[in-house]
Amino acid sequence: MRISVLDRFYSGDVQALSRLISEAENQSNGYQKIISTLYPKTGRAYKLGITGPPGAGKSSLVDGLVNQILKESFKVGIIAVDPTSPFSGGAFLGDRVRMQNLVGRKEVYIRSMASRGSLGGLSATTFEACLILDAFGKDFIILETVGVGQIELEVAQHSDTILVVLSPESGDSIQAFKAGLMEIGDIFVVNKADREGASRLAVQLNMSLELKRKEQKGEYPVLTTTATSGGGINELWQAIKKHRDFVTKSELFSQNRKRQLKSQLKRVIEEQIRISVKSRLSSDLDWDQLAEEIYLRKETPYSLAGRLLDSWRSK
Amino acid sequence: MRISVLDRFYSGDVQALSRLISEAENQSNGYQKIISTLYPKTGRAYKLGITGPPGAGKSSLVDGLVNQILKESFKVGIIAVDPTSPFSGGAFLGDRVRMQNLVGRKEVYIRSMASRGSLGGLSATTFEACLILDAFGKDFIILETVGVGQIELEVAQHSDTILVVLSPESGDSIQAFKAGLMEIGDIFVVNKADREGASRLAVQLNMSLELKRKEQKGEYPVLTTTATSGGGINELWQAIKKHRDFVTKSELFSQNRKRQLKSQLKRVIEEQIRISVKSRLSSDLDWDQLAEEIYLRKETPYSLAGRLLDSWRSK
Repeated sequence: MRISVLDRFYSGDVQALSRLISEAENQSNGYQKIISTLYPKTGRAYKLGITGPPGAGKSSLVDGLVNQILKESFKVGIIAVDPTSPFSGGAFLGDRVRMQNLVGRKEVYIRSMASRGSLGGLSATTFEACLILDAFGKDFIILETVGVGQIELEVAQHSDTILVVLSPESGDSIQAFKAGLMEIGDIFVVNKADREGASRLAVQLNMSLELKRKEQKGEYPVLTTTATSGGGINELWQAIKKHRDFVTKSELFSQNRKRQLKSQLKRVIEEQIRISVKSRLSSDLDWDQLAEEIYLRKETPYSLAGRLLDSWRSK
Repeated sequence: MRISVLDRFYSGDVQALSRLISEAENQSNGYQKIISTLYPKTGRAYKLGITGPPGAGKSSLVDGLVNQILKESFKVGIIAVDPTSPFSGGAFLGDRVRMQNLVGRKEVYIRSMASRGSLGGLSATTFEACLILDAFGKDFIILETVGVGQIELEVAQHSDTILVVLSPESGDSIQAFKAGLMEIGDIFVVNKADREGASRLAVQLNMSLELKRKEQKGEYPVLTTTATSGGGINELWQAIKKHRDFVTKSELFSQNRKRQLKSQLKRVIEEQIRISVKSRLSSDLDWDQLAEEIYLRKETPYSLAGRLLDSWRSK
């Protein structure tokens, strides 16, 4: 049964692809074994991270970019990390709707992942989804995240090229600084270039990047796009390819990938420990009785925790 | 030295209080021992959780409520969990500014805690800060959180009474449903009652709460306030006291507290494991060499993680 899913996966079956990603996402029994099996086939895909504040127009930009990428017959996988917080202002469903003209195309695989609740967990799962898409034969993997917090930054840092997308609205450039986006970006995009303030924002970004350019000896270009009408998308795609050529030829590439793998190894270790702890915590210990003792102040949470851990270790 | 901080703490020194909370927050060496020492003195304070979307006016409401509480000579501690995400829309600094007329009053202790990055960690720290404030002799502890995600819900669930604050703007009631606020609230507040749509929102909430009232046999009142002018604050304070009387007389109270302690015990266990794992992960293993082997596809992150864990266990 498991073998047949893998067989179908290898033969290019998209349902099998979806199934494997789901198993990684749900941490089904044996999912790590499956990824281990696929692992030797990975390392080929190029990962493009796209991040920026909600409303900057990332999804429309992805839409436009993917059309460009497809023209050159590359296979594309998209992982969109959706903020599930209802108050975050991210148009989660809306985003998917905007990407809908990609949904029908079989060269493109789109997957949404929710960021709710799991720190580290999401980051690990995203990495694993990338491995699966990579083994499936995708040439480009686009990781779209909302640059709002630690989780998204971590996810973006799995990427080989990072695009930071801003729009002229709502003081984005200041926010980008605060969120650490200026540090992680390789290419900066001022989207909604037809709106007021776009060229001012581009100038501002260029100025802010001066120091980084000198110190890191990188180009860090600032481009303007109007994703909804397709303006600037081709230029952006050329800039991405240029950066990819630069990166893959530089020794930074393998260094960066090894850094990614090192964090992934640590995350897997933490994950495996977490799973084993979780099974301990849901074990048939009399937690109510233990809570009672703490409630009566006969014990403290710390003294009990210490004793339980000692007894687990000695087993 | 440590003893002298505790002595000062017991004598009511606010700086010593701050210092102990910082030690818990930073997980300084021995902080669990300190909390264990204080632990027998805890269990007296009443915890009031206040949550709701950004911009609902929680801080102004807290401000007004605290003034009411002080009139009855209760001692108050406030823990404000600030969203640190720059794009979340929460006016973090602004909130503190709005509470500024409380800052000078010595019966009130205000502490901000950042929610960035730490899942579970924040929840544990908040619980510990409550224990410290409790041992310090506070009668009421107000936990103000922005109801945007799992972390905040968890924090709110440390409370004995939970206030859900909404404003007539921006479809708050739908959002409140999505975020699970309707389930956790004991008292519902429509703040900014002078704005359009306030009474409609109150009607809507009352309707939505009908089922919960029947099933849980609780009152779940909906109140309207205009925190900035003080309107409705006294009524709200009476409702809170009524709920507190109901809760503390009911057997639900000790059940609820035991439930809180049970989760805290589990969190402490997880925390202690996390700390020991972290020290493992920062140990002098040759992580670069390990990453190299994964990069060359000689190993997978999973095979290596498994072997490392086995070797740690056998030590």
